[in-house]
Amino acid sequence: MRALSANKENESEAIVREAIASVPLLRKEWHDRAVQRLNSLTKPLGSLGRLEEIAARVVAIREELRPDCSSKVIFTMAADHGVTDEGVSAYPKAVTRQMVVNFLSGGAAINVLCRHLGIDVTVVDIGVEVDTSELPDLVKKKVAHGTRNMAHGPAMNAAEMYRALEVGIELANDAADSGRTLIGTGEMGIGNTTAASAITAVLTDMPVTQVTGPGTGLDQAGIRHKVEVIERALAVNHPNPLDPPQVLQAVGGLEIAGLAGLILGGAARRIPIVVDGFISTAAAAIACALQPRVRDFLFAAHRSSEPGHEALLKFIGQAPLLDLQMRLGEGTGAALCMSLIESATKLLNEMATFSSAGVSEASA
Amino acid sequence: MRALSANKENESEAIVREAIASVPLLRKEWHDRAVQRLNSLTKPLGSLGRLEEIAARVVAIREELRPDCSSKVIFTMAADHGVTDEGVSAYPKAVTRQMVVNFLSGGAAINVLCRHLGIDVTVVDIGVEVDTSELPDLVKKKVAHGTRNMAHGPAMNAAEMYRALEVGIELANDAADSGRTLIGTGEMGIGNTTAASAITAVLTDMPVTQVTGPGTGLDQAGIRHKVEVIERALAVNHPNPLDPPQVLQAVGGLEIAGLAGLILGGAARRIPIVVDGFISTAAAAIACALQPRVRDFLFAAHRSSEPGHEALLKFIGQAPLLDLQMRLGEGTGAALCMSLIESATKLLNEMATFSSAGVSEASA
Repeated sequence: MRALSANKENESEAIVREAIASVPLLRKEWHDRAVQRLNSLTKPLGSLGRLEEIAARVVAIREELRPDCSSKVIFTMAADHGVTDEGVSAYPKAVTRQMVVNFLSGGAAINVLCRHLGIDVTVVDIGVEVDTSELPDLVKKKVAHGTRNMAHGPAMNAAEMYRALEVGIELANDAADSGRTLIGTGEMGIGNTTAASAITAVLTDMPVTQVTGPGTGLDQAGIRHKVEVIERALAVNHPNPLDPPQVLQAVGGLEIAGLAGLILGGAARRIPIVVDGFISTAAAAIACALQPRVRDFLFAAHRSSEPGHEALLKFIGQAPLLDLQMRLGEGTGAALCMSLIESATKLLNEMATFSSAGVSEASA
Repeated sequence: MRALSANKENESEAIVREAIASVPLLRKEWHDRAVQRLNSLTKPLGSLGRLEEIAARVVAIREELRPDCSSKVIFTMAADHGVTDEGVSAYPKAVTRQMVVNFLSGGAAINVLCRHLGIDVTVVDIGVEVDTSELPDLVKKKVAHGTRNMAHGPAMNAAEMYRALEVGIELANDAADSGRTLIGTGEMGIGNTTAASAITAVLTDMPVTQVTGPGTGLDQAGIRHKVEVIERALAVNHPNPLDPPQVLQAVGGLEIAGLAGLILGGAARRIPIVVDGFISTAAAAIACALQPRVRDFLFAAHRSSEPGHEALLKFIGQAPLLDLQMRLGEGTGAALCMSLIESATKLLNEMATFSSAGVSEASA
C-alpha cells in the first residue's frame, strides 16, 4: 500500500477535478435522432415504453446511432467500516473478506447472475481491513485498512478520500480503454448501509430515522441503535451538504468513494453507468453533487427495499427500472438491469423498419 | 384446414376437459424445501426479494429441488378478428400477416429479444384470415380464417373454440415432450385488444369504459368508438362469466383461445408459464376461470399500459414482475421476464451456501 503524502493528495485531487470537468453535457440532437429511428421500427409508436427511453439516452451518451452495450462489466468494490465497532450490522466484519473470497470463487449471487447474463465481474479491494495480498484475480487497490469509526470523527482523511475517488476514475479509464460499453456498480462492506444512510441524511436533508433501515437484517432495536450511531456521527463531523468531498470524507466509505470515482470517470468517458442499490446510489449521489451533469449518464437499476433509497433516487433524478424488493447489493440489481439496457439497444439496432419489412403503418 | 364436424367438436372438448382435470395442486412441502435452501445461501435472509419467491414457486411447480429453466420457448400465436370491420384498430387487418412474415424473418421486437435472451420463438398461425401456406417455419394450425364480427354474433362457433383450445394443449404437450422447461405466451392479431377488453369486462364485471384503451394507438374518439362496439358485442352475445367457454366463443379470439389452451396444457405438464401483456392475460384469465389451480403456474411478466390489465392481473392472482410501460405484445414482456425467472432458478442452483463458502452467518 502506498503512503498517502500531501503531494499525492494534491495529485489525486487534481485528477478528480479533471474528471469532474470532463463530464460532457448530453445533446438533445442525438436523442431526437434516436427517437426518429425508434418511430420507424415495426411496432406501434412508443409501445416499447421505457426500453425506448433507455435506447434514446444511450444514443445520446455514446453519440452513436447504433450503440453497442454488449461489453459489460460490474465493479464490485469491497471495503470495511470502522463504524462496525458500534454494533451496527447483523454480520461480523470478517464477512467482508469472506465474501471477497466467495466472489473470486464464483459462488456469490453476483457471480451467478453475471455468468447468466454475460457480464464480467471485477472484484476490487479498495479498503478491506485484513490482508488480501494472496488472493488471485483480486484487483488490489487498497487505500486503507478500512475506514475509521465515524461516530468518533471523520471516516477518512482527505488524502484517502481523494485517492479512493482516483482509484474509481482509474478503473473507469481502464474500462473505457479496453472497449467496455456498459459499466455496473457493486459493493461489499459490512457496515456500509450505515455510511450510505448518513450520506443520504446529509445530501437530502431527511431525518436519519427516515433513511435508515435493517441493512443485512437488523431488528427494530438494532435499527434504533443504528440511527443513534448515525446521529452521533453527524453531530461529531458536521458534514456540510454544500461540500460533497467533506461529506464523503466524514461519513462515507472507501468503496463508496471508489464507486463515486468510477461513476465520474465513466461519465467523463461517455459510458452509461448502471447504479445498483442503496449504497451504490449513495455513491452516485456524491458524484452528482460533485457534478450534476453526471445524472444523465446514470440508469437506476432497481428500487431497493432500504427506506433511504427513494430519497437518493430523487436526488440523482432517475426512476428505477426494476422493483423486485431486492436488498443484497454486490451489483445484483445492476446485473439484471444491464441485460435490459442491452435489450433496449439491440431493439434499436436490430429491428426491421416498416418500410424494410413491408408492414403497413397506422392510419393517421 | 380440417372441417370441424360435431364429432371433432366432442373430441376437442374431451381433450380440453382432460387437460383441465390434469392440472395439479402445488404442494407446500416443495415450496418449504426451496425456502430452506434459499436461506442457506450466502446472502442476507430474503435479500433477493421476488427472485426468491420465483425460485420457490418454480421448485413447487416442477417438484424438483434444482429446477432448470434454460429450455425456453415463446409461442407467438397469430389470428385475425372479424370485429376489425367496425374500425376498432389504428392498423389495417393486413398487418397481422405482414407481422407474421416479419416474425419469420427475424425483424420484429420479439425476435430481437429472444435472440438476446436465448429463447426460441414458435410462430403459430391459428387463425390468420389470409393464406399463409407458402410461409416456411410457420406452425400451421389455422382453425378458421379469422373470427366473425362479435358485434353481430359469436366470434367463433363451439367447434372452432374447442379446436383452438386443443391446438394450445397440443403445443404445450409437444413442448413438454421435447424437454421445454419454461413457456412464454405471445400474440399478434389486429383487433385483439377489443376481444381482450370484452373478456375483461365480462370476467371482472368492470364497466367497458374502464377496461378499454388505445391498443396500438387509437385517439380518444377511437377509444370511445371501441367501447361502443364492445358494448354492442356484449348486448348481442350475453356472455356469461360463469360459463367461460361461452365467453371465449362469444367475444374471444382464436389466438386467445390457443393461448388459454397452451396455459392449461402447460400447467397440466408442470411447466411454469410466463404470461405476457394484456391479451395474454385475458387468455390466462379464461384458463383460470376454467381451472383455478392454473393460477399457481403463472408468472405475470409485466404491467401493460393498457387500462384493463390491472383488473385481469387481479383476476389471475399474480403481481407483475416488470413495469416498463410496454404495450406491444408479441411476447416481448414475457421474453424479458423469462430471463429473470432463469436468473432466479440459477441463483437457487448455483450459489454457495454459508457452510460451503466458509462465510459467517448473521448473529441471532
